[in-house]
Amino acid sequence: MNIVNIIEKKKDNKVLNEDEITYAVNGYVMGIISDAQMASLLMAICINSMNEEETYYLTKAMIESGDVIDLSSISGIKVDKHSTGGVGDKTTLIVAPIVSSCGVSVAKLSGRGLGHTGGTIDKLESIKGFKSNLSEEEFIKQVKEIGIVDAEQTKDIVPADKKIYALRDVTGTTRSIPLIASSIMSKKIAAGADKIILDVKTGSGALITDFEESLNLAKMMVFLGKRFNKETIALITDMNEPLGCSIGNALEVKEAIKTLEGHGDKRLTNLCITISSYMISMGKNISLQEAQMQAEEAFKSKKALNKFKEFVKYQHGDINNIKEAKNSYDVHANYEGYIRDIDETCLANECLYMGSGRVNKDDVINYGVGIIIKKHIGDYVKKGDVLATIYYDDKKVNDKNVEKSFILSDTKDNGFPLVYTIIR
Amino acid sequence: MNIVNIIEKKKDNKVLNEDEITYAVNGYVMGIISDAQMASLLMAICINSMNEEETYYLTKAMIESGDVIDLSSISGIKVDKHSTGGVGDKTTLIVAPIVSSCGVSVAKLSGRGLGHTGGTIDKLESIKGFKSNLSEEEFIKQVKEIGIVDAEQTKDIVPADKKIYALRDVTGTTRSIPLIASSIMSKKIAAGADKIILDVKTGSGALITDFEESLNLAKMMVFLGKRFNKETIALITDMNEPLGCSIGNALEVKEAIKTLEGHGDKRLTNLCITISSYMISMGKNISLQEAQMQAEEAFKSKKALNKFKEFVKYQHGDINNIKEAKNSYDVHANYEGYIRDIDETCLANECLYMGSGRVNKDDVINYGVGIIIKKHIGDYVKKGDVLATIYYDDKKVNDKNVEKSFILSDTKDNGFPLVYTIIR
Repeated sequence: MNIVNIIEKKKDNKVLNEDEITYAVNGYVMGIISDAQMASLLMAICINSMNEEETYYLTKAMIESGDVIDLSSISGIKVDKHSTGGVGDKTTLIVAPIVSSCGVSVAKLSGRGLGHTGGTIDKLESIKGFKSNLSEEEFIKQVKEIGIVDAEQTKDIVPADKKIYALRDVTGTTRSIPLIASSIMSKKIAAGADKIILDVKTGSGALITDFEESLNLAKMMVFLGKRFNKETIALITDMNEPLGCSIGNALEVKEAIKTLEGHGDKRLTNLCITISSYMISMGKNISLQEAQMQAEEAFKSKKALNKFKEFVKYQHGDINNIKEAKNSYDVHANYEGYIRDIDETCLANECLYMGSGRVNKDDVINYGVGIIIKKHIGDYVKKGDVLATIYYDDKKVNDKNVEKSFILSDTKDNGFPLVYTIIR
Repeated sequence: MNIVNIIEKKKDNKVLNEDEITYAVNGYVMGIISDAQMASLLMAICINSMNEEETYYLTKAMIESGDVIDLSSISGIKVDKHSTGGVGDKTTLIVAPIVSSCGVSVAKLSGRGLGHTGGTIDKLESIKGFKSNLSEEEFIKQVKEIGIVDAEQTKDIVPADKKIYALRDVTGTTRSIPLIASSIMSKKIAAGADKIILDVKTGSGALITDFEESLNLAKMMVFLGKRFNKETIALITDMNEPLGCSIGNALEVKEAIKTLEGHGDKRLTNLCITISSYMISMGKNISLQEAQMQAEEAFKSKKALNKFKEFVKYQHGDINNIKEAKNSYDVHANYEGYIRDIDETCLANECLYMGSGRVNKDDVINYGVGIIIKKHIGDYVKKGDVLATIYYDDKKVNDKNVEKSFILSDTKDNGFPLVYTIIR
């Protein structure tokens, strides 16, 4: 087996076989294949793509590069959830307690954020005392006792993905359906759940902005899930405006609690109920209608809110002690009109500048900083109206950038749908 | 300027501008851009290609990464020659003295071989005492005095190409028209000649086997030459069988002398006269017919042979002392039929195995070893006929591979044309 021949085969737009793909992945992890050779192969994959079987072999080789979590000692069907990443995406914080309070175990491993997209673990750590690094025994014990856990990945899951992802980031090879799909699905499958729900974001704030491409990504991931004998459903959901009202770790936790209390943003609430319904339906093998009734009941009765509190407490978090920024002020509109669009990436970058996330892997997070959005798509803005409230510690945002993020129109726009379609 | 954006632009099949291309080349030479990033960009160029202007900017940036030779103190028009590389290609050894003996100065810098293709400097060094590393002063002095010189490149010409070429070799990014064209033409233009003749090989033994692609490569190189204000002509010539009868450094020098003596292989002689005619025509601004008459006269009168002897002597070579292999033996045919094709790459690899070239850059060459071919395309072979004579020191070839390299047919084939077309 010769890596140059494998690279040239993909360069010539031919189909790679399992041996070739496995050799490339293992060789790269072992250091036999150089960064330059892997980058060249990744670019050939980006341009010439991979078919479903090739992507399956890639995912398989990546999974086999590390450990696979064994959740078999936990009774019942375990359903995992993944979002392809969006600005202000705090759905996991709301969905997990809804699903768990309906009797479906949630055994979740979450990640930290890098760049302008946040990570659920970072959000949870804005709660004072919250412990995210659990041993495997602690993890399993907690699911068995309270039916919900969310911890940072400790076992060495998919090391091939870590190495390949870091390389893709600096070599212009991030946007590729087989590469994104194998990266996500290898981690989901290694995480040990029986069934998987995917929230594939599409629109200006998503990694993949084009709808057709988002659809293809969803189809590829659903194919992969099934190929590994895991029922998999993908929702294609909108990421043309921030999800909910807040961006920033502590602000998003507070919004999640407010939502579980029944006072949340309508779009966010609806998306959480929808995702929860699918997860409950999959976890209990019941109809979607029945599952949705259960989700709504858990939500309205505050069973989900109480489950969230129980979960936070069990992981040593003090829900009454969520980190806060030192200062805040309002950004006012100096224009009038209907909001047609919100540049959520621009707002996320402003939050990143204030310290809400990491530009480099080892950066320390400022948990309290962030932005609360006061106007949404379809709203009419008058001069002097508050567009957003900024929570900051030392670095302030550029107000002009915040103002510019709200894009106006003369006529009222109906905005974007919440869920575009479902792939199963 | 951000290299990831540049890579993604080429990945998305967009046209790069001069600043972007210059930044990529300079950044790579300076070490700001990593091997992995450059490999990713090179693969994107391999698949999505570059237009003429992009290739011009690439060539320009590569030339400007190093020194440019100044030949202006030598009177008259200096014509350089380049072959894209073939098995048994000893044309330079024959063409240079023909052209020089007709009064056109030949100031040539040549390279060493790597892999199965040979290098003119290696061939000349099989002559005892031949000095190939000349100072710039020695180089210029020799052209002025005897009108011919062939030396190893000493100045730091196109360092960007050295670094990029080594990377392409291990990352499956060799076969690409803009990358091959810029690599060749940057070196030719930096070598300082006024006009350039290109011998673009096509066929099974060439780097580019497909005729249409060879044509496109020739067109791109002619465009580049003209873009740098150097008259450039490309001949597309056949590389479906070895050129002449010998493969191996000393054997090729001996064949060159035999050819200059008038006893050479007809195809080789014809190609050398053709290339010489173009060079004389370009160097003297005379018609091709007139130039051909002069070339033939120089050849027949042995003026060219004497010029070759003068040139070798001037560079301290003893033409009566050419290195020889210790042993030789004949490979006989165990089949009958007409030769339809000869696998010159297979024969070249057998020579490489015996030590005629370098597998790795620092390998020591066995100058005497090689193969003399006794049967050509169109010849009828009877059982027991000698197919080839093997000259070896310690490692013998695999006879089966030599036999197999002669591909038979029941009917006589006319073989391949010598020159397919001319691009100017």
